[in-house]
Amino acid sequence: MSDSERDHRLSRRGLLGLAGAGAAGLAIGGGIGAGATATAFGAASATDSGTHYPFYGTHQAGIVTPAQDQLHFAAFDMSAGATRADLVSLLADWTAAAARMAQGLPIGDGAVDSDLLAPADDTGEALGLPPNGLTITFGYGPELFVDATGTDRFGIASRAPALLTPLPRFAGDALVPASSGGELCIQACADDPQVAVHAIRNLSRIAFGRAALRWSQLGFGRTSSTSTTQVTPRNLFGFKDGTANIKAEQTPAVDADVWVAAADDPAWMAGGSYLVARKIRMVIENWDHAQLGEQQRVIGRDKGQGAPLSGGTEFTDPDFHATTADGATKIDHHAHVRLAHPDFNRGVRLLRRGYNFVDGNDDLGRLDAGLFFISFQRSPEQFIAVQRNLATDAMNEYIKHVGSAVFAIPPGARAGQSIGASLFG
Amino acid sequence: MSDSERDHRLSRRGLLGLAGAGAAGLAIGGGIGAGATATAFGAASATDSGTHYPFYGTHQAGIVTPAQDQLHFAAFDMSAGATRADLVSLLADWTAAAARMAQGLPIGDGAVDSDLLAPADDTGEALGLPPNGLTITFGYGPELFVDATGTDRFGIASRAPALLTPLPRFAGDALVPASSGGELCIQACADDPQVAVHAIRNLSRIAFGRAALRWSQLGFGRTSSTSTTQVTPRNLFGFKDGTANIKAEQTPAVDADVWVAAADDPAWMAGGSYLVARKIRMVIENWDHAQLGEQQRVIGRDKGQGAPLSGGTEFTDPDFHATTADGATKIDHHAHVRLAHPDFNRGVRLLRRGYNFVDGNDDLGRLDAGLFFISFQRSPEQFIAVQRNLATDAMNEYIKHVGSAVFAIPPGARAGQSIGASLFG
Repeated sequence: MSDSERDHRLSRRGLLGLAGAGAAGLAIGGGIGAGATATAFGAASATDSGTHYPFYGTHQAGIVTPAQDQLHFAAFDMSAGATRADLVSLLADWTAAAARMAQGLPIGDGAVDSDLLAPADDTGEALGLPPNGLTITFGYGPELFVDATGTDRFGIASRAPALLTPLPRFAGDALVPASSGGELCIQACADDPQVAVHAIRNLSRIAFGRAALRWSQLGFGRTSSTSTTQVTPRNLFGFKDGTANIKAEQTPAVDADVWVAAADDPAWMAGGSYLVARKIRMVIENWDHAQLGEQQRVIGRDKGQGAPLSGGTEFTDPDFHATTADGATKIDHHAHVRLAHPDFNRGVRLLRRGYNFVDGNDDLGRLDAGLFFISFQRSPEQFIAVQRNLATDAMNEYIKHVGSAVFAIPPGARAGQSIGASLFG
Repeated sequence: MSDSERDHRLSRRGLLGLAGAGAAGLAIGGGIGAGATATAFGAASATDSGTHYPFYGTHQAGIVTPAQDQLHFAAFDMSAGATRADLVSLLADWTAAAARMAQGLPIGDGAVDSDLLAPADDTGEALGLPPNGLTITFGYGPELFVDATGTDRFGIASRAPALLTPLPRFAGDALVPASSGGELCIQACADDPQVAVHAIRNLSRIAFGRAALRWSQLGFGRTSSTSTTQVTPRNLFGFKDGTANIKAEQTPAVDADVWVAAADDPAWMAGGSYLVARKIRMVIENWDHAQLGEQQRVIGRDKGQGAPLSGGTEFTDPDFHATTADGATKIDHHAHVRLAHPDFNRGVRLLRRGYNFVDGNDDLGRLDAGLFFISFQRSPEQFIAVQRNLATDAMNEYIKHVGSAVFAIPPGARAGQSIGASLFG
C-alpha cells in the first residue's frame, strides 16, 4: 500500500477510538523537529503548503509561530449537565485529534475503512491537503472555573488564575453577546482556510454532548507579523499593521511580555499566556470617504510605506516630539501609533496576531468588515492598560468593538499528554 | 523611481479620474496574453501568486479560467433615483477599475500622491500584493431590465434576454431574501482572499450613490475544477466535487453548453453566458452523524477516492445498471451522481464554479456552512432542468437552498471599452 493510498483511506473507528489515535500521533510526531517543514503528502496542487508545526511542545503552537494567512476561531461552552470527567475527556480527545491534524493526518487511527455502518472518524474535506502550517491553540475562559451563577461546576475554582476575569468595560464598547465570552476557545490558523475550518469543525464534532460552539469567526490576511521573516501586512484600513509588533525572534521581549513565568501565579500556567480577542468592526464607508491626510493623521503613519509621520521609513522609531514649522507635533496627540506605543504605556507591549474579517454586509449595503484582534500577553492587564490608553484614539471615530473575550492559554502539552494535564495535574 | 516605489505610491486623483485610469490599464494590459503568468511585482512573500489574467477579451474572465481558491461574490441594486446615465457610467468606471486590479495595480492613475486633501483612489489593503489570479466578472439581473413594479427604469427593457427571468421555485426551497436576487452582480475570484475582498470593496465604493450592495458572500476552497490541470477538490460533505465538471479544455462542450452563440437571442449576449448562484446550507451535524455507507449511498461515489460505487477510479464513468449480488443497483436510484448526470438530464451539462462557505454558527452551535453553488451555462434552462431532476435527490435530506439568483453575463469587453458596451451599443 502506497502512502498516497493510505492517506486517502478512511478510518473505520468511531469517535471512541480517539484515545488510540493519540498514541499514533505521538509515534509519528516524535520524529519531527520544532518548526521543521516536512514534505507535503498527497499534495493537491503546486500552491499547497506542506509547512507543518508540531502540536506538542513547551508552549502551545499558534502564538509565536509565524502568523499564517487564515484563521478560524471558535469559543465553546460546556453543555448543560457536563461533568468534570467530560471536560477532562474532551481536552484529551481534542489533544489527540489536534496532534494528528497538525501533521496533516486525518483524525482516527488511519486504518483501512471497511465499516460502512459507522460514521467516519474524519469528516474528510481536508483529505489530500497538506498541513498548511496548521496550529491549534486551546484556552480556558473565566466561566470555565466559576460560572455566572458562582458555581464551581468542574471542581477547578481553586485553580483559577486570579488574572483571568472578564475584561472591564471600555469607552465606546458596543459588545454583542453573540460574539463575546466563552468557557473554552480554539484558535485554528493555517495557510488554507479549508484546513482551518476542517479543524474547528472536527473539534466541534468531537465535543458533541460535552461542549457546543458559542460563537466562531473566520479571518483572512493576518494583520500582524510575528516573525522578522515576514513582511508587514495591511489591515482593511489599507495601512500596514503590526510594524512594531513583538516578533518571535525577540526572545527577551517574548519572555518578558508573552509567556507566563515559572514564578507567576498560578504555577500551572507557567509557559502559558493569556489571549484577548476583540472583534472590531470598521466603519469602512466613513473611512473610505476620509481624506488621505485625515487617515494618516489618525494612524500617525503614511499610507504608502508605513513610515511614521515624523519621518524615515517603516521601521524608523516614531519621534513624538518632532514638530512642523507651525509648531504642531508631526504625529498627532491622538494618533493611534502614539497612544498604542510602549512609550505612552509604561513600556507595555502585546504580541498581536489578528486577522481581517468580512461577514457579508448589513441591510444598508455596508460591508460588515473589520479586524478580529487577537493578542497574547503574560497578563491581561497589559491589554487593559493599552486599551484604556486608546480611549482618546482618533481611530475610535471609525471603529466599534462588537466582540470581546479573554482566555487563559495553558502551556503546551508533552507528547502523549493531554493539553488539560497542566490544569488537572 | 523603481517599480517597487511606484507600486507603493498612492494616486492623488479622486474617483472622477477613473476614466483616465481605463486608458492606462489598456496601455499596460496590451502586452499580456490570455492566460499568461506574469512575474509578481512587489510580491509580499514567497507564497504569493503572481498569476494574472487579462480583464479584456472575447469572453469575460472568471468563467473558464482555472478556478481560483477564494471568492467574494456581491449582488447590487441600483440606487433609488439612479438614471440610465448613472448605469452607463457605473459600468464604465467598474470596467476601468477592474482592468487595473486584474493586473495588480491600484485603482486610479498610479501617480505620486501629494494631495492629502482628497480621499485616495484605492483603499490600499492590496498594495504590495501581486494579482493572485484575480478575475472580476460582471452580470445583469432580471430586475435591471424591468423592475418588480414593471418599470423600465433604464430604458433597456426591449434588450432584455427572454431567458433572463427569476428562477422558478424548486421543491424544498427555503430562500432568504437577504441572499437572493440582485440587479447587478460581481464575482471576484483570486488565490488570496484579501485581493478578492479588496476588489469588491473598491467596486462598491465606486458605486456609491449609483448602486449599493444587496448581499455578498465570501467563499473558499473551490468545489470544482474548471481545468484538466487542476485536481478535484472536496466540498464540506468531505467528498470530491466536480469530477465530471465541464473543463476549459473541452472546447466543444464549452461552446455548446457555456457560451451564448452568435445565433442565440439576443445578439448582444453572444460570447456571454448565464450565471446561476445558489446558497446551499449543509446540515453539517446530521451529515457528520451519518454512517459512511449512507453518505456514499447519497453521493453515489466512495468517499476516499471519489470512484463511482459501480467501480473503477475517480474518472471511471458510472455504470448505473451495475447490480450487486442481491439485484439492487450499485448506485442508488436517488444518488446525487445519478440524478445530476447528463444521462438522466437529456445530455445537459453545466460549468460549475462553486465555493465552500462558513458564516460562523447559529444559535444552536451548529456551523452555518455549506456550498455557494455557481454555475455558468448557455441558458438558465440547463440549470432549471437539472435542479428539477434533483427533486428526489437523496442529498436533499442534508441540504437547504437558502439563496438564489440568476444573472446574464455579457461577453467580454474590448480593451478600452466598457463592459456595458454590448448592452448599450
